[in-house]
Amino acid sequence: MIDVKKILAKYSEELNGPMDAFLPPEKPDNLMAATVQYPRAGGKRMRPAMVLAAAGAVNGDKKKAMPLAVAIEYIHNFTLIHDDYMDGDEKRRGMDTIHMKYGGPTAILAGDALFAKAFEVIAHLDVPDNVMREVLKVVTRAVWDLARGQQMDVNNENGEEVTMDEYIETIRLKTSVLFAAGAAGGALVGGASKDTVNAVHEYAMLLGVAFQMFDDVLGLVGDPVKLGKSVGNDIRKGKSTVMVTHALKNINDPEIMKEFRSILGKSGASEDDIGKVRKIMEDTGSIEFAISMAEGYTKRAIEKLSCLGPGEDKDFMIALAEYAMKRDV
Amino acid sequence: MIDVKKILAKYSEELNGPMDAFLPPEKPDNLMAATVQYPRAGGKRMRPAMVLAAAGAVNGDKKKAMPLAVAIEYIHNFTLIHDDYMDGDEKRRGMDTIHMKYGGPTAILAGDALFAKAFEVIAHLDVPDNVMREVLKVVTRAVWDLARGQQMDVNNENGEEVTMDEYIETIRLKTSVLFAAGAAGGALVGGASKDTVNAVHEYAMLLGVAFQMFDDVLGLVGDPVKLGKSVGNDIRKGKSTVMVTHALKNINDPEIMKEFRSILGKSGASEDDIGKVRKIMEDTGSIEFAISMAEGYTKRAIEKLSCLGPGEDKDFMIALAEYAMKRDV
Repeated sequence: MIDVKKILAKYSEELNGPMDAFLPPEKPDNLMAATVQYPRAGGKRMRPAMVLAAAGAVNGDKKKAMPLAVAIEYIHNFTLIHDDYMDGDEKRRGMDTIHMKYGGPTAILAGDALFAKAFEVIAHLDVPDNVMREVLKVVTRAVWDLARGQQMDVNNENGEEVTMDEYIETIRLKTSVLFAAGAAGGALVGGASKDTVNAVHEYAMLLGVAFQMFDDVLGLVGDPVKLGKSVGNDIRKGKSTVMVTHALKNINDPEIMKEFRSILGKSGASEDDIGKVRKIMEDTGSIEFAISMAEGYTKRAIEKLSCLGPGEDKDFMIALAEYAMKRDV
Repeated sequence: MIDVKKILAKYSEELNGPMDAFLPPEKPDNLMAATVQYPRAGGKRMRPAMVLAAAGAVNGDKKKAMPLAVAIEYIHNFTLIHDDYMDGDEKRRGMDTIHMKYGGPTAILAGDALFAKAFEVIAHLDVPDNVMREVLKVVTRAVWDLARGQQMDVNNENGEEVTMDEYIETIRLKTSVLFAAGAAGGALVGGASKDTVNAVHEYAMLLGVAFQMFDDVLGLVGDPVKLGKSVGNDIRKGKSTVMVTHALKNINDPEIMKEFRSILGKSGASEDDIGKVRKIMEDTGSIEFAISMAEGYTKRAIEKLSCLGPGEDKDFMIALAEYAMKRDV
């Protein structure tokens, strides 16, 4: 049985040095301090682990994939800096967010700087020029899509009701594409064929959807202490998650519907309010529905890996897809 | 005699189609509208003109340089979107700025999206893979430096007094590097040798410094009607421009120094206050000093072009450097 957390921790440890090495001290000091904070703060680092595992799973040289792993995590970090500022979030991983500590302008610039650095690292990848170009294509497209997905999320949080298909498209763009760019990029650096690269890309797209759907579930029924944040915030924002969309379709009693709608999008909803919504969703089977839908994505993700030969990296990729549904944080 | 404005207008006209073509409609609508606004709004478009001229000046195919010209202008546009938000500016080219029209989050995302698109365009350049990689290296480094220069500018505006050398380093980073990446990139796409690429890069670095120094002069003594903005804002922000640094060194009368310092950094300084500062700087020769310093940079910029054979593109590049000092807007 593969211990995903342990392998993630091992990869994370290996990443510490390179994550720092591509950001040597430069002027001005406040921008550099803001730029290195998230890259140094750790986190699950699932995306760079995916890059390295994909490179290994296609029998490539993982060392050559390390700079790409760093670049993908820088991109993830850059989006977190900008998102935290947009959302007005004050804390991340127990520290003040960048805009809280250094102000809004520096948060914007630190994000931009990390974004630029990620592509500078890609420009210097130790792979043939044509392979570097393919990596660049998939990663640039991913960042374009990330911005689109993030905007859809902003629109959704502003109360624009969306269909389930639209919500899934949103999470494909805001979450899956970077996982997928990492996995496909790792496979490219590892020298995989086009078909294999595509299969690994699809695997990570599907995994990303499952990951985000389960994230939404955790955000409603997870343990606030383990998560390090309060639950129910998607409800307070009135976000059309899979659970919400399913509940809106399946609540038959007009009274219950009235109560549900009165809490959905209520920014000051109490713990008690959130508990009521959770109870309604349990009754409609909406939470179970979201979990089984996410399980379906996980299964389809794993099937995409059938083109890979056996090995510990493939096993880790399978386990990572299952972990997306099994984690408590 | 070359009519720089006319040639810039011709290039700008040629750019309209490609600037649009790389941004076809996608979802969501509000992000797309925010993303295309500045690229469609025109402006001087000096940076893409530089890309095309540099490609032509090394006897390259200008058509192949067109996508790079677009990418460089997208990068310029992305920095404008983020800068306008950081500075709280409400108008640009007679239109509401992006954050005024679509809100702060969309301004951040539209900037990020344009940034990503610029590199996606570079990834698809119709040049050999190794040339594309060299272009990518110079452009990614430029964007990293832009963020640094912008932060130095923010720090400077927050009243941090800087030396003249530090100020020049700031404008090299916030202004010159993108001109230089455009010129060097154009030369690379045009198939120039490493030495020629470096010379063209240095030309544009020097031109950028002259351009920004003269911009500072215009910002104090220019015609507010032609500029479309009030003059003296650098004084109100207490910015250490070349003129200010020179004046602080050359005011001998303590009373005048007291008056100068009382207005410098005074956010509510009146037209009358600005007039006083202007008069003091005329007496200390600080405005002339900045102009002659900028002229020196222009001259050195033009000297760098001696490696190029004669031709209309070279002539335009020379004229562009002179124009940096002759414009009234």
